[in-house]
Amino acid sequence: MDVAKAPGSTWTQLANGNRGIEFIDVTLRGCAQVMFQNNPLTGLLFFAAIFVGAYAEGIPAVAWGCVLGTAVATLAGLSLKDRASWKAGLYGYNGCLVGAALPTFLEVTPVLWLCIILASVVSVIVMLCIADILNTWKVAALTAPFVLVTWMILLASYAFGGLTNTALPVPNLPHDLVAHNSNLFDGIHLLDGVFNGISEVFLISTLIGSVLFLAGLAVSSLWAAVFAVCGSLLAVLTATVLQAEHASINNGLYAFSAVLTAIALGSTFNTPSWRVLIYTLIGVIFTVFVQGALNTLLAPVGIPTLTMPFVLASWLFLVPNKDVMPAHRQ
Amino acid sequence: MDVAKAPGSTWTQLANGNRGIEFIDVTLRGCAQVMFQNNPLTGLLFFAAIFVGAYAEGIPAVAWGCVLGTAVATLAGLSLKDRASWKAGLYGYNGCLVGAALPTFLEVTPVLWLCIILASVVSVIVMLCIADILNTWKVAALTAPFVLVTWMILLASYAFGGLTNTALPVPNLPHDLVAHNSNLFDGIHLLDGVFNGISEVFLISTLIGSVLFLAGLAVSSLWAAVFAVCGSLLAVLTATVLQAEHASINNGLYAFSAVLTAIALGSTFNTPSWRVLIYTLIGVIFTVFVQGALNTLLAPVGIPTLTMPFVLASWLFLVPNKDVMPAHRQ
Amino acid sequence: MDVAKAPGSTWTQLANGNRGIEFIDVTLRGCAQVMFQNNPLTGLLFFAAIFVGAYAEGIPAVAWGCVLGTAVATLAGLSLKDRASWKAGLYGYNGCLVGAALPTFLEVTPVLWLCIILASVVSVIVMLCIADILNTWKVAALTAPFVLVTWMILLASYAFGGLTNTALPVPNLPHDLVAHNSNLFDGIHLLDGVFNGISEVFLISTLIGSVLFLAGLAVSSLWAAVFAVCGSLLAVLTATVLQAEHASINNGLYAFSAVLTAIALGSTFNTPSWRVLIYTLIGVIFTVFVQGALNTLLAPVGIPTLTMPFVLASWLFLVPNKDVMPAHRQ
Repeated sequence: MDVAKAPGSTWTQLANGNRGIEFIDVTLRGCAQVMFQNNPLTGLLFFAAIFVGAYAEGIPAVAWGCVLGTAVATLAGLSLKDRASWKAGLYGYNGCLVGAALPTFLEVTPVLWLCIILASVVSVIVMLCIADILNTWKVAALTAPFVLVTWMILLASYAFGGLTNTALPVPNLPHDLVAHNSNLFDGIHLLDGVFNGISEVFLISTLIGSVLFLAGLAVSSLWAAVFAVCGSLLAVLTATVLQAEHASINNGLYAFSAVLTAIALGSTFNTPSWRVLIYTLIGVIFTVFVQGALNTLLAPVGIPTLTMPFVLASWLFLVPNKDVMPAHRQ
Repeated sequence: MDVAKAPGSTWTQLANGNRGIEFIDVTLRGCAQVMFQNNPLTGLLFFAAIFVGAYAEGIPAVAWGCVLGTAVATLAGLSLKDRASWKAGLYGYNGCLVGAALPTFLEVTPVLWLCIILASVVSVIVMLCIADILNTWKVAALTAPFVLVTWMILLASYAFGGLTNTALPVPNLPHDLVAHNSNLFDGIHLLDGVFNGISEVFLISTLIGSVLFLAGLAVSSLWAAVFAVCGSLLAVLTATVLQAEHASINNGLYAFSAVLTAIALGSTFNTPSWRVLIYTLIGVIFTVFVQGALNTLLAPVGIPTLTMPFVLASWLFLVPNKDVMPAHRQ
Repeated sequence: MDVAKAPGSTWTQLANGNRGIEFIDVTLRGCAQVMFQNNPLTGLLFFAAIFVGAYAEGIPAVAWGCVLGTAVATLAGLSLKDRASWKAGLYGYNGCLVGAALPTFLEVTPVLWLCIILASVVSVIVMLCIADILNTWKVAALTAPFVLVTWMILLASYAFGGLTNTALPVPNLPHDLVAHNSNLFDGIHLLDGVFNGISEVFLISTLIGSVLFLAGLAVSSLWAAVFAVCGSLLAVLTATVLQAEHASINNGLYAFSAVLTAIALGSTFNTPSWRVLIYTLIGVIFTVFVQGALNTLLAPVGIPTLTMPFVLASWLFLVPNKDVMPAHRQ
């Protein structure tokens, strides 16, 4: 199982010897860090998945935005002192998601490309800010910088004629979803929900994409891949029992934050054990509630939750991690 | 006046000798901690008040939810290292309020009971999280874990067909309340407002309940009972002068957060003195403004403020407590 | 160029010798601190600008509210231990803005004057609270206490018949602004936007006011005045390119927060340099996005952003300041 290591060693030598290749290496790692992996091969597979998905959905700008965002954020990170974080791709992943999100919701214009560049640079500053603050309690910034910066631009798009909304939810007061009294699983496509839940982390829903994302995870950490699939499944089942909107469940919209919660609590910040498993289980189920809650909370202002349900649930569960877990990773 | 101590000593011996009785003791203290008291007799009187109120209003599930929530949260707290906090009931009070709040606003179904159990467990994790964060500035979590977890479930209920709203406010854009030009006190039932303000801390409005709550407080701390009544009166008067909605004033909805602010600032975290009295007075009046503000802020998303006005006002006044007060308790 | 120092020395002697004059001195400094200046002459010029503007717009209560708010907050600050901060006017500036904002949006009644007094006192407590919290990361409270306290009162005004709304935005769901396909600068009055942007920091829009504000800044720090003008210009240009509403741009509503961001990042918390200049440039442009975003976010609850865009953008850029800047002031 040296798939990840074997090319790593040669590649690492190349990356250490050449600034251009090092930059590509760090950009790839930036993409991989969206799912907490510090591995250029993972990043390559993730980018492949993004291109497949974006072209299949007819929005190539999502893929190119992803590349641009990761590269700009990585470049901006170059000017900082903390080289270890930079080399691990930790300044790149928020830019990667910013670049995927903005063309998904706004019309692709020259102003939008400028916005992606600005937002990617600002995502590095916000990353530093949140990391500094959360360092007090030894918790990571997760994807909060991406969410906050993207929310700012999306909210601002309502006030600016120069940014045109193409796929934002229409601002609306929340209303109760009426329960269907039929069989809970009628209309639920379990596999669709589970796999879309994985690719929707990058705002994409294509089966081949999901497979490539899982391959990328497995190449770096089998546990991460296992937690991703199980987290997605648990989230889809929870949302089904709670009778959430069928279309949202099938599109993976109740699962993508849960996927990240599962990887984070289950494998990234803890070593798998029975106690960790139960904690992760509660965390994943709670993430589904937070997803529903944020859907309601953001309805009047017409923006999507992005990965905020994951960020909130994981922060809540990670801050007290040391009080709950016998041994934990930082 | 050894009412609290006398049974305490025998009871404490019993509780120390038997795990089952210890669990009951801690569960009772959990209920008492909603109003900052570490006293099982207070908890017993509070539970009595809750049962009287809940059955009088025809929602017995509120009382049973309270018992279930406190017990589950106390049980979840058992797995943690901090035994001193556990013994004082500090892991139980948020579960107690979660169990009272959910059946007040949502239809009582099997899924709701599961939600109460989940939310009570999560309230312990959120308690640890907030306590960890606020420990940096030596401030307590207050009822923030209850409010946040309950808000999550109530907001999520709009998105989930499996959770049916029975008493949530209809989501609406705020509009100006028109002033009544008549006598300010026309239509105000002062005593109703003051006493309901005390029982509404537990989301209940019955006179006998209020008397039992006051008795529970007095048994543990006379000052706490005095501050509760005076805080409630001051809040009702402030809301009357500001011409808030009459029904809300009479139902104690402008007073219950102020009651908690008064007890917290006046007797729990400070030793009564003239300076403390003035500080508490300002705090209570400000709590009424925060109550009005949160009513407006939450109108578009259709959820109640719960005790958040108390939490916000008290945090604002407790963080700088050491800069303002000559001597203060932690 | 000893305009600021010359009267200062004599004045300082007077202020040190007489408690009444000292109080006036600190109140003037409180007004000056709204734009980060510790200089009584600046405060005098600012007050002159406020009176000119308020009387020109026919709302004299704005000017008298400003004086009352600054004086009450300064008085409340007297009871605290930290004399150095008190002498620098750091307890006064939030009261100054509270006193300007409340009569701008609410009907001037006896209850409103009581609200200004209460809010000014509470602004000092909130100042202590936020300063205590942010001290952990060595960041200043900026105008957050003003914004939070004023938001509370304005939100509460919807719930209280005793507080009548005169100029609050009507609560509304956000809708997309349609782009004008004509020349970007059609309908934009560049100079108006730039100068109003400076005086709108105090919620006033008069040309003479802006000139007096700039004079007040220049008397204390030429760099501050330069950054104020350039920040305002850059903000107006950014909002124009993004095609924000013309009336808002011309009234300086996209520039006033940016003015404060420019002074804060460019001259108050950093020593001017090329690196600082680029950082400030990004910060100012980002402030315009935050302004648009908060306009959307607050639309459903019908309150203005006040200077929150400045506070948020500056906190985001100041927390990581030490990681980004070689040398910085605290």
